[in-house]
Amino acid sequence: MEVVEVLHMNGGIGDTSYANNSLLQQNVILRAKPITDEAIRSLYTNLNHPKTICIADLGCSSGPNTFLPVFNLVKAVDDQHKKLGRRQPAPEFQIYLNDLPSNDFNTIFRSLLPKQQEDFRREMGDGVGVPFFNAVAGSFYGRLFPTDSLHFVHSSFTLHWLSQVPQRLEGNKGNICMATTSPLNVIKAYYNQFNNDFSMFLKYRSEELVKDGKMVLTIMGRKNDNPDLHPMDLLAMALNDLVAEGFVEEEKLNSFNTPLYTPSLAEVKSLVEKDGSFTIECLETFQIHWTGDEYDNMIGNNNNNAAYKVARGLRAVVEPILVSHFGEGIIEEVFHRYTKIIADSMSREKTEYTNFIISLIKK
Amino acid sequence: MEVVEVLHMNGGIGDTSYANNSLLQQNVILRAKPITDEAIRSLYTNLNHPKTICIADLGCSSGPNTFLPVFNLVKAVDDQHKKLGRRQPAPEFQIYLNDLPSNDFNTIFRSLLPKQQEDFRREMGDGVGVPFFNAVAGSFYGRLFPTDSLHFVHSSFTLHWLSQVPQRLEGNKGNICMATTSPLNVIKAYYNQFNNDFSMFLKYRSEELVKDGKMVLTIMGRKNDNPDLHPMDLLAMALNDLVAEGFVEEEKLNSFNTPLYTPSLAEVKSLVEKDGSFTIECLETFQIHWTGDEYDNMIGNNNNNAAYKVARGLRAVVEPILVSHFGEGIIEEVFHRYTKIIADSMSREKTEYTNFIISLIKK
Repeated sequence: MEVVEVLHMNGGIGDTSYANNSLLQQNVILRAKPITDEAIRSLYTNLNHPKTICIADLGCSSGPNTFLPVFNLVKAVDDQHKKLGRRQPAPEFQIYLNDLPSNDFNTIFRSLLPKQQEDFRREMGDGVGVPFFNAVAGSFYGRLFPTDSLHFVHSSFTLHWLSQVPQRLEGNKGNICMATTSPLNVIKAYYNQFNNDFSMFLKYRSEELVKDGKMVLTIMGRKNDNPDLHPMDLLAMALNDLVAEGFVEEEKLNSFNTPLYTPSLAEVKSLVEKDGSFTIECLETFQIHWTGDEYDNMIGNNNNNAAYKVARGLRAVVEPILVSHFGEGIIEEVFHRYTKIIADSMSREKTEYTNFIISLIKK
Repeated sequence: MEVVEVLHMNGGIGDTSYANNSLLQQNVILRAKPITDEAIRSLYTNLNHPKTICIADLGCSSGPNTFLPVFNLVKAVDDQHKKLGRRQPAPEFQIYLNDLPSNDFNTIFRSLLPKQQEDFRREMGDGVGVPFFNAVAGSFYGRLFPTDSLHFVHSSFTLHWLSQVPQRLEGNKGNICMATTSPLNVIKAYYNQFNNDFSMFLKYRSEELVKDGKMVLTIMGRKNDNPDLHPMDLLAMALNDLVAEGFVEEEKLNSFNTPLYTPSLAEVKSLVEKDGSFTIECLETFQIHWTGDEYDNMIGNNNNNAAYKVARGLRAVVEPILVSHFGEGIIEEVFHRYTKIIADSMSREKTEYTNFIISLIKK
């Protein structure tokens, strides 16, 4: 499986599309908004009246979440511009929306029709600088932009996707990523891949960002050294059920692993320090329920509805990977079982993601 | 019909796709290559070691022609860099590929997979500056880029497409654009629309280009003041046949006009001079057969094959517009008849396009 060719959110705007099943990712973006806003506000204040501010969102997907972070950033600069009372006109924005080439860029662009752009301008009010939108297709584990060409990089809920499934995953039978029951060699192999990938990510971004440029990353991670329970582990259970009942060959499942790794906070910090190109301005940890709702809201709620929501959310994310390995035939059945397994799990444990928001300044 | 939502080449890579039926447009690009190359070479020589050269191709479509002009430009700069023996490393290239939002950008991006990029690098040889590709969706009759952000603009065989079908086309019965039999009010309405559109095009590009930046446009035009015979006129004949035989309502055809205008050289020159932001560096006129072949090659060839080629070429360009007005049902029949009408026309007259290549320097 070539990750770069297969990994993409479900395209279009249909029932199982990412566009219609990405409330979790939206809430993660909103949770990081105060830090993101503050980062770009202080960047703008320190810059000497830039005519154009260049912003990249890496892993933009296709749907409402594609525009949410960059609209927030434009708004934050605009507010700051007004607050500072600078005499110059508001800056223009060069916005780069990046994702892998298999992402549905057509849907993004078709939501940028003149009518939508007018709506945006109306919503933003008068005097706001014009944003110009560009799409950039490619892996953020490679170079994407010219040297010293960006002021601000944003990436949310993306860096847990590795550039490839690690080599040498012997002994991970029954699992489809690093799981609580994975042997040490598997955990090491996943960590090594993350180490390589995240190091490359930092290296290339440091080349692309101007001095004093900023980068805010929201990373899906894990609470401590041991793997947390992850929705992927329950997806593995659903797939194992299909094996037990003879719908999927055991060998087919054993040869399936996903390019997903959830780092610990210590791992992230240590790789940023090792790279050495960035100063850590701010680092926060937060939890969010698998549904994307605040955890407290879930108590007493109907688990079946919540489980359905989680299953649909994960389906929008992993369906292309599953189809490329198992074919389309099993999809409905897998997600039917998966929903039940999630409901059961939710009634017994705290099903939440641990996330890190890290705000960095290019030295 | 909203042009911005409907006008696009046939997407994908199938039998009737633009990608597989765009040899004419390719030959037009190659015909302009010496002028385009010279323009960017002299631009590069005069610039003071730019670290990044920003190039926009406007109306890039999707298919092999999407990359052809920009690859040629990168190669020309690279050759010049080597020839000048500058000590600095080769510049990086920020490439902006623009078309309307309904263009098939997904197909463009999927041809930018790592393997294809490697092929490109191998073909270009060592030491060439890295091109970074961006897609920009929007009408070039509006602003697309920040102020002073481009060094070079290229656009080939695009400016005959107007931003909208002109108003007040009474009396154009039986025609679907400005034709040899159109009354004066129709010709005037088309000219006025071109006048507005091309003026906007020049105004916005002059804002986006840096001082001394360059722009090379290849424009499908007409030989003199009177409209030339155009393949669209023959398409109108095929549609009229369907009306005569009761397959299409007469009213349906009468309400159909396309946003296409072929200016004269005098009109183009006069609008550039009126705008006043550009110096004309070079202006050439050339003819090319409707098939895209050199005219002489056509003599003695099988007209039916040539006509089939022309019909397929036009189908790849206008099918989305036809479908949006007449529905899909008539398409096969229209192009079946159209091929015969073209073959007949070819046996009787010189079926060729007149084109202008204009190289401009931003004052």
